[in-house]
Amino acid sequence: MGSSRKEIYFDNSATTRVFDSVRDIMTETMTADYGNTSSLHTKGVEAEQYVREARAEIAKSLRVKEKEIIFTSGGTESNNLAILGTALANRRSGNHIITSCIEHASVYNTTAFLEEQGFRVTYLPVDHNGHVSPEDLRAAICDDTILVSIMYVNNEMGAVEPIAKLAQVLRETKPQAYFHADAIQAYGKYVIRPKKEGIDLLSVSGHKIHGPKGVGFLYVDERVKIRPILFGGGQQMGMRSGTENVPGCAGLGAAAKEIYRDHEAKVDHLYALKDRFVSGLHELEGVTVHGLTGRDSAPQIVSTGFEGIRAEVLLHALEEKGIYVSSGSACSSNHPGISGTLRGIGVKESLLDSTLRFSFGVFNTEDEVDECLRVLKELLPLLRRYRRG
Amino acid sequence: MGSSRKEIYFDNSATTRVFDSVRDIMTETMTADYGNTSSLHTKGVEAEQYVREARAEIAKSLRVKEKEIIFTSGGTESNNLAILGTALANRRSGNHIITSCIEHASVYNTTAFLEEQGFRVTYLPVDHNGHVSPEDLRAAICDDTILVSIMYVNNEMGAVEPIAKLAQVLRETKPQAYFHADAIQAYGKYVIRPKKEGIDLLSVSGHKIHGPKGVGFLYVDERVKIRPILFGGGQQMGMRSGTENVPGCAGLGAAAKEIYRDHEAKVDHLYALKDRFVSGLHELEGVTVHGLTGRDSAPQIVSTGFEGIRAEVLLHALEEKGIYVSSGSACSSNHPGISGTLRGIGVKESLLDSTLRFSFGVFNTEDEVDECLRVLKELLPLLRRYRRG
Repeated sequence: MGSSRKEIYFDNSATTRVFDSVRDIMTETMTADYGNTSSLHTKGVEAEQYVREARAEIAKSLRVKEKEIIFTSGGTESNNLAILGTALANRRSGNHIITSCIEHASVYNTTAFLEEQGFRVTYLPVDHNGHVSPEDLRAAICDDTILVSIMYVNNEMGAVEPIAKLAQVLRETKPQAYFHADAIQAYGKYVIRPKKEGIDLLSVSGHKIHGPKGVGFLYVDERVKIRPILFGGGQQMGMRSGTENVPGCAGLGAAAKEIYRDHEAKVDHLYALKDRFVSGLHELEGVTVHGLTGRDSAPQIVSTGFEGIRAEVLLHALEEKGIYVSSGSACSSNHPGISGTLRGIGVKESLLDSTLRFSFGVFNTEDEVDECLRVLKELLPLLRRYRRG
Repeated sequence: MGSSRKEIYFDNSATTRVFDSVRDIMTETMTADYGNTSSLHTKGVEAEQYVREARAEIAKSLRVKEKEIIFTSGGTESNNLAILGTALANRRSGNHIITSCIEHASVYNTTAFLEEQGFRVTYLPVDHNGHVSPEDLRAAICDDTILVSIMYVNNEMGAVEPIAKLAQVLRETKPQAYFHADAIQAYGKYVIRPKKEGIDLLSVSGHKIHGPKGVGFLYVDERVKIRPILFGGGQQMGMRSGTENVPGCAGLGAAAKEIYRDHEAKVDHLYALKDRFVSGLHELEGVTVHGLTGRDSAPQIVSTGFEGIRAEVLLHALEEKGIYVSSGSACSSNHPGISGTLRGIGVKESLLDSTLRFSFGVFNTEDEVDECLRVLKELLPLLRRYRRG
């Protein structure tokens, strides 16, 4: 498999190519230092050292304690552990959870499950830029509130939520309740300081930051009362049983290290790509960029409506030219459907099914942006004509 | 890390070195064909193809349908999904579960959790060879029984449970109830036919068969009523949300393919190592091999008590000579403690803390067995003298 044709991969919010350093440390831990961290001999100790170094690297990137990092099998498990783990452990304190109407499926399907279990869930609206209002949150908090879960960066259109302000509102109104941030599209793009920002739990996925698939982590402030959702050998201080995925953890640690090395330059590069792309899009006819742009938005995501063209048609036309993008979010297994986020921000009906997500990664170049714009300029009139024909 | 000294790795039931074919396909899917299976473009389609091929390979190895294979993050999640998923989905039919007293922690800590949730659990005893009796099972089954969970091969001493007989008893007595087999130490060592043997659910882990850590699967017969334990994007027909771990699945598929290629020869090789080792052990003084040996036991595991020597002391003395083994089971995070399995089979008190597990893999050789025996012959009198000194 794999094509020899030049590819332009603008689907980095779906998944990414791993860094070479990630590949190398994973190969090493699969073929030479392949021990089980629970083994008492050298190979076990060496394996544990890889996990410890990865945990230290991640803790450093967030300025938190190493013991506050729990490795999981990815973003979905991190979000499930954060929400189920705190909800079920704190049920005696209340049964009310607050989240937003534009969360990822691994949040809203988890809160939906808790509704079946007798919890009450408030889904906060967002404005046309995709932002949750601190005042709406304040109004929703009640005596029974035990958890607020708001994403840091929206995966479909790149809105950046006012996390620190929202967490502050919670701190002022119901200090016993926990604040969870799904930071799966934010970690590696932002310098995140959970302790300063008032975040008690933070979910991260490896494969969005050029790390491995099948691994992620949950930051859990040491004061949080939480119970595990998987039971077994008691690994990770009982919070996540199962033989540690040493290559996965080591790969995630290597990715965290590399993504935060010369971090400002990496982020500047992404914004340069985004600004260049958005400027070019504005010169095309019948094209709408959803939400805010520039530094008021996430560096890697551009969500764009193409009047009169079905998203899937344009997606495949771009694919023919070697350009890979996403229709809506790629995180919901082959069921593109209509995005809840786009409805949530009030995108007009005619664009709901005509929106593509372009998402950049550190491997992308300005030449690729220019090439994509050139192809769009050529394709759009053709596809619109074809559609009328 | 990693030593240049010759290593003898006899801890293959803790974890294994991956096959070269596993490393290669994982590298390919991390660096070239790194797409997200949910993406609609070529890179998504290619990624899905890897997962489909892995699923087909695994389904073929068990003679089951592809849609009956659910990829998980490993053995612990497979056991949790099997037990929690069926117990919670079938609560209206009954609240009684039957298991044995020598199960892995990912089974007994999951049934313990269900006890807290109001389920009733019967823990069947085993005889001195580690076997559950079909008659004991028959006597334990009642109107409320919804699930029986028995391991295929015990991880600590290699007892092979009479799974087909046990499943038949369940079929005769309570055909509506499900039979789950934890086959984490059995898959790759035995040709398993769930449909013939009456197994409704079967748990497997990748890293015990020279596949990747952090990935496993659960076979679920299509007629089983089960609910997911993780919520999200609805991947794998809603049974296991989360971006598919493409490299992990592909690696597991490659390992399944390789472990079942020339399978009889591989198993013969393991039995040859085991027989040679057991014969050698019998020539040493104060050494007891627990349970059955030869073809009446699993090919890869030898559990041995060394009179008058603490397991940990011998483990580290062997380690000094580059020989890596396990004290009890390595699956319980750094808490060796006293094995429930050894107590369960009635090992005498003086040997409980003096037992090591030697576990072989396809990379091991007869020379390594001979070298280990030579080292034991040299060490045992020294350690016993030292202890008295």
